Order: sequence, then C-alpha cells, then structure tokens
Amino acid sequence: MAVNAPHLAPALAVPGFKVGTASCGVKSAKLKGRRQDVTLIVSDVPCHAAGVFTKNLFRAACVRRGEQTLLDHAENIRAIVANAGNANAGLGDMETVWAGQLIETGANAADVDVNQTLSASTGVIGTPFPIERIADGMHEASENLTANNWEAAADAIRTTDTFAKWSSKKAGDYTITGVTKGSGMIHPNMATMLAFIATDAPLTSEQLRPMLQRVANRSFNCISVDGDTSTNDTLYLLSSGIGLGHAQLNDTTEFEQALTRVCIELAQLIVRDGEGVSKFVEINVTGAMNEADARTVGRAIAVSPLVKTAFAGSDANWGRILSAVGNSGVAIDTGKITLSADDVLMFEKGNLHSGYSDADGMAVFRKDEFSLHIDLGMGDQSSTVWTGDLTHEYITINAEYRT
Amino acid sequence: MAVNAPHLAPALAVPGFKVGTASCGVKSAKLKGRRQDVTLIVSDVPCHAAGVFTKNLFRAACVRRGEQTLLDHAENIRAIVANAGNANAGLGDMETVWAGQLIETGANAADVDVNQTLSASTGVIGTPFPIERIADGMHEASENLTANNWEAAADAIRTTDTFAKWSSKKAGDYTITGVTKGSGMIHPNMATMLAFIATDAPLTSEQLRPMLQRVANRSFNCISVDGDTSTNDTLYLLSSGIGLGHAQLNDTTEFEQALTRVCIELAQLIVRDGEGVSKFVEINVTGAMNEADARTVGRAIAVSPLVKTAFAGSDANWGRILSAVGNSGVAIDTGKITLSADDVLMFEKGNLHSGYSDADGMAVFRKDEFSLHIDLGMGDQSSTVWTGDLTHEYITINAEYRT
Repeated sequence: MAVNAPHLAPALAVPGFKVGTASCGVKSAKLKGRRQDVTLIVSDVPCHAAGVFTKNLFRAACVRRGEQTLLDHAENIRAIVANAGNANAGLGDMETVWAGQLIETGANAADVDVNQTLSASTGVIGTPFPIERIADGMHEASENLTANNWEAAADAIRTTDTFAKWSSKKAGDYTITGVTKGSGMIHPNMATMLAFIATDAPLTSEQLRPMLQRVANRSFNCISVDGDTSTNDTLYLLSSGIGLGHAQLNDTTEFEQALTRVCIELAQLIVRDGEGVSKFVEINVTGAMNEADARTVGRAIAVSPLVKTAFAGSDANWGRILSAVGNSGVAIDTGKITLSADDVLMFEKGNLHSGYSDADGMAVFRKDEFSLHIDLGMGDQSSTVWTGDLTHEYITINAEYRT
Repeated sequence: MAVNAPHLAPALAVPGFKVGTASCGVKSAKLKGRRQDVTLIVSDVPCHAAGVFTKNLFRAACVRRGEQTLLDHAENIRAIVANAGNANAGLGDMETVWAGQLIETGANAADVDVNQTLSASTGVIGTPFPIERIADGMHEASENLTANNWEAAADAIRTTDTFAKWSSKKAGDYTITGVTKGSGMIHPNMATMLAFIATDAPLTSEQLRPMLQRVANRSFNCISVDGDTSTNDTLYLLSSGIGLGHAQLNDTTEFEQALTRVCIELAQLIVRDGEGVSKFVEINVTGAMNEADARTVGRAIAVSPLVKTAFAGSDANWGRILSAVGNSGVAIDTGKITLSADDVLMFEKGNLHSGYSDADGMAVFRKDEFSLHIDLGMGDQSSTVWTGDLTHEYITINAEYRT
C-alpha cells in the first residue's frame, strides 16, 4: 500500500558505468529465473568512491569489508556487487568467508581486482549463503552489462519493496544516478537500506567522503519507518570522472545540491513504500540551535509509536507530538514552541492557539500526505524529516509472517 | 487483555496514614458517582518524602510544583492529592494556576498547609481543568479518610487501566504500601505512570532520596510498554516514621530490599496491563561493564518494534533481538554475545548455537510469559527489564480512538 508512489522519470546512463543483473535464485533455487536478485555495477575506469554504513554494532561482514576497502583503495574502485534474498548476516565465522567469496566471484565476473570491488547483501539472515548459485548469477550478470540498465538494478536489489526506486539528476554537464531499496523491516528478519549512486563528475574520494556524509544526514538519515537500524545498511557513491580524464571539479556546490536532491528523492521513496505505511508525513523543525538538534527533534517525532498511531488514526493529537519533542533529549524551552500542521496553527509559544479547532486539525490529519512544522524558537537552524504512520498492516507484516 | 493479572494480596494499612477517595466526575460531570476519580492520602504527622519525576521536558505543572515542594519541604510533607480524568497539561499559563488550586483545595480538605502537599494529575490533556468539581471531590474524599483505604486509592487513580494495582511488604516491623497506575499510552492523549508509596519506617528525606532513585532504576525505569515517557510521570515516597517518634533507621538494607520488591511488583503490574499486551517478557542482561549499560541494552530490546512484533507473532526471531542489541548505543563485542530464551540456547559467542532448532525457539515464544537472557561477556554487571508485545489491539486503542 505505497503512498502516492510517483511515476519516476527514466534513469539516466552515467558515462563510464555499465550495469548487469541476473536471476540465480538466491533465496531458493526454485526462484531462479523468476525474479532478478544479483546486480553488478562496473566502471570502465578506476573510480573515486565513498561510503556510509550502518551504525548498528552487529554489522554484517559485507559492511565491515566494504569499509576496509574504502579506507585502503577509495581512489581505485571498479565495481559494486550486490545480492538480494540473503543478507549473509548472523552466520558467525562463515559470514566472513562467504563475504570474501561474494567479492571474489563478482570481481572475476567483472574482470577487476578484489580490492577494486565493493559488495552489499540484503535479505534473510541466519540462512547459509548460497555462494555457488550467486557465482553463476554474477557470471550471467556480467554477460548483460549495459549502460542503460539502472532500472534493472533498482529492481534486482529489492526484497519486500513493492516498487523499484531510482533517481537521476544533472549537475551541469555531469550526471548522477542512484538506486535504492528498503521498506522498513525486511522480510522476514531484518531491515536493510541499500543505495548505490554513480556519477561522472570529476571528484576525488577526499571530496566525496565528507560530502556523502553531509548529504546522508539530510536524506537517508532523515527518514524513519520504524526507528530500527539494520546490520547491513550501506550507501555507496562512485565517481568515474577523474578516471575518464576530466579535470577535478573544484566548485562542488551545484553537484552537492543535485546529489542531495537525488538522495532525498530516494529516501522519500523508501518512506512511501514503508511497510504498512498509509500516510506520508514531512516534519519540518526550525528555530534550533544547530542542525543536529533539529534532526534529533524531527526523528523523535518520527519514531514515536504515540505519534505514528495518531497519524494512522487521522487523529490531530498535538499532545503526543509535543510529548515526543519533550522526550527527544534536545534542550528546549516549552514556552517557546510553536506547532502547526500544514497551514493550521495548533500550539503557539507554549499555549494552545486560541483560534485552533479540532475540526481544522482533523481536516489536515485525514489527508494521506501532510506536513508538520515545529519551531523551537531557540535559534535559526533547521532540518526536515520524512516518516509514515504505524498501522495494522505493519503489525500483520511483522508479527504474523511465520504464523 | 491483561497478561496473567495476579490475584493481589490485601493492601496493608501503614501507621500514620489515612486514605480517602471520591467520585466527582473529573472527566465529565455526567460521570460523577460512576467511578472514583479523586484521591487524598493524608498523614497524621509530618513525613519525610522523596520523589522521582518524568524526564520529559514538557512537564506538567503538577510535576514542576511537586519537585519544588520536595526541594523546599521534603522533611515536612502531610498529603498527596491526585485526580484521574484530566492531566492538567498542555494548557499553558492556566495549567500553573489550576495546579496551584488543586493543591489548595486538597490541602484545605486535608487540613494541612499547601507547602505540605504534593499533587499528581492524570488523564486527557488540553482540556480545561474542572477545578470546582475537583474541589467538591476533595471535600468528599476528606470525609471518608480511613487507614484501610489503599485499594480504593489504587482504583481511583486509574484511567484506562483494566485493574487496580497495589503492593504491600513488611520490612522488619515496618510496613510499605504502594499503589500505581499506567497501561501505556493513556486514553486518549498521553501516557502517565503514577505511583504513591507510604511507609512508617523511620527514614529521613536524605536517606529516601537516593534510595528512591536507585529503586526506581531497578523497577519503574526497567519497564516499557511503548518507549514513550509522559509529561506527568510521578513517583512519591512518604515516610511517617520520624514524625511518629521512632528513632531513625540506620541500617536501610532490609528496607531497601522490601521497597525494591514493592516497586518491581507495581512496575510488572503496569506491563501486564499494558495496552494491547498479550505477552509478558522478562529480559535479563548480564555480563555488562556496568548496570546502566545492562539496562540500556535491555531497554533497547524492550522498545524495538521489530522485537515486539516478533513477540506478538510468537516468532523466535533472534536476528531482531541481536540487531536491537547492536543499536543500543552500548559498546559491545558481537563475538562475545550469548542469547537464550528460557532454557533454549540460541546464539553463543557470535555464532548461532549448533544445537539450536527453530522449533525449540518457537516453543518458548508461543508461551504468554517467558524470559530472554543476553550475556554481553564484557563484565559482571546486570539488569532486568520487563516488557510486552506490540499487537493489533495496541494500534486499535491508539489509532482508532477518535474515528
């Protein structure tokens, strides 16, 4: 029941990159040929690259390996190999072995070095990783590598996602294309958010690294379906521009703006496809002392079961929203806080707004898409967070899968 | 649908204390006479007292006032006045006025000073506080003050609680009796946990204050229905012993143990009566570097929607539990973690236990009451947390109230 899933403009090819997918039956040999589940993204030239990973301390082997590869070889990356259907997580010592074999088979198929290869896995955890089937799949994917295959990649990395998610933007002459997957707590054991972004803008890994963290903080880190962070969350950004012989881009402003738009679009698509989500809510927090405070307040609202069930019930329950603000851990002055929903002013500087009527609030909360605006009255920094509601369908998906 | 609500042993009278209740129709004048909603707890002698309050920064006026009174007059408290049906919260400037009037009318009814009086309110927020009806109720409650009325108080402080909650223990010759209320996110706007405890053990406020915080950390702070903290949460402890002329108790060990048992019993009753809760789960965390770490890990498991929906679905989903441990913020070594459910070993020092079978795990998770044991393998400190599951009924209660 995706909320207002938009019709996506075609994904743009990115100079230097080719993409291939295959169906090898990762989750079950019987599924071979039924759905794409292996993805190979290969660059003709060495890329500069950056990554952002889950903060969960139970990190899958592919995350640990990817982080190490970027520490050692961020200016010489050629490929991303990914599979859906098995997260290769919770498997102890074998997990590390299989993660290495995934990279080896992918690198062989792409004809690049293992040190030039990043990987990502998503799907069930605690199930032995079917490396032989995946090796076959990698080989098959390498045989259909083409420049215009990004939408296939967006499809092949899906698990329970109900639609494929991609976004492309131009930054001047350069192209940015990203694909992502994630819809909350993924079937049946674990949530994973994956996003792979390619560009031909000539940026070095030293430029990409801090930029990607900033952009992630304003996009993927600003969404919440259920407040849980998975063991496998991975965001990779690869740039072929330097390898293609372009002079390094020094003014990165336009590029960062375009990259931010790509990542916000991808992040919003995840919320729209969130498990059981029937409403899409934007939470604008302004008047904070700093951006991190604003984001913390927004996320506290976005993860509160109190608030999310109120969204589900179309209940303009301003008390729950204020209580979530008070619980965020950010130092606030309750007498300075102002809250509105769309253009309906509810609470003004510590008091219920005299002109507010429950009917006006309900009219906003009944919509399937609306925004909240919280002004903390403390400073001039802001953040925007996107979230959905908490519904019966969410419980059904996550409680009743095995029953 | 309370989980295994136990038959409670009778509440014991506490020397020095009398309790009265009344029905004044706090929530609606039409409810007058239908259910008790005003409580007066009065001591014959000045009590030493301590309190623990919500950490939510949106704190109701009664919380702010109670904290101030305890700062100034903790060795001379005579009364607690409480009402259910209206939280007197989210009302801006009038909230402070009404909180003062509640104390004034309660103090008048009890014939004590306003500075000797603590108050607590619970119920709907954002609705004008019906101080005239409450004043009548206080007067009526003062006319039926008796020593054996604690069970009536436990009844009168309820909002959506499905049963009244109390506990009494002896500590040597002394008596401890406590009442509490709370069942998650209280109808319709706000969760509130209230607990009032009386004893005749001769302890000073200097002794009571740190002890009550320690005990709260091992009882009320170890439960979670939904991870939200209300604006009105209040725990009061009053001791009449010094005022009754007893010599100060110097060895407080036995008393603190009995107080801990009272508070754990009361806290567990709240979980058993949690909104929509169909399972009661104890989470034992051992092997931590310190008790706070252990509690943080336990609470991270207890609030995870992933974990709580798995409980609801009787799904022995060990991956979700480990992921919650990894998200707790506590520094852990994943290779040292061991997890079992009741006597079924699931995960051992970073690997799925070789003898574990899904059928064995499911047999535990199908029970309506079971325990998890997580050994972090880092140190020798521990904590125990109690929680319930996240069910369709929870969504129904909290999403669909007004629809």
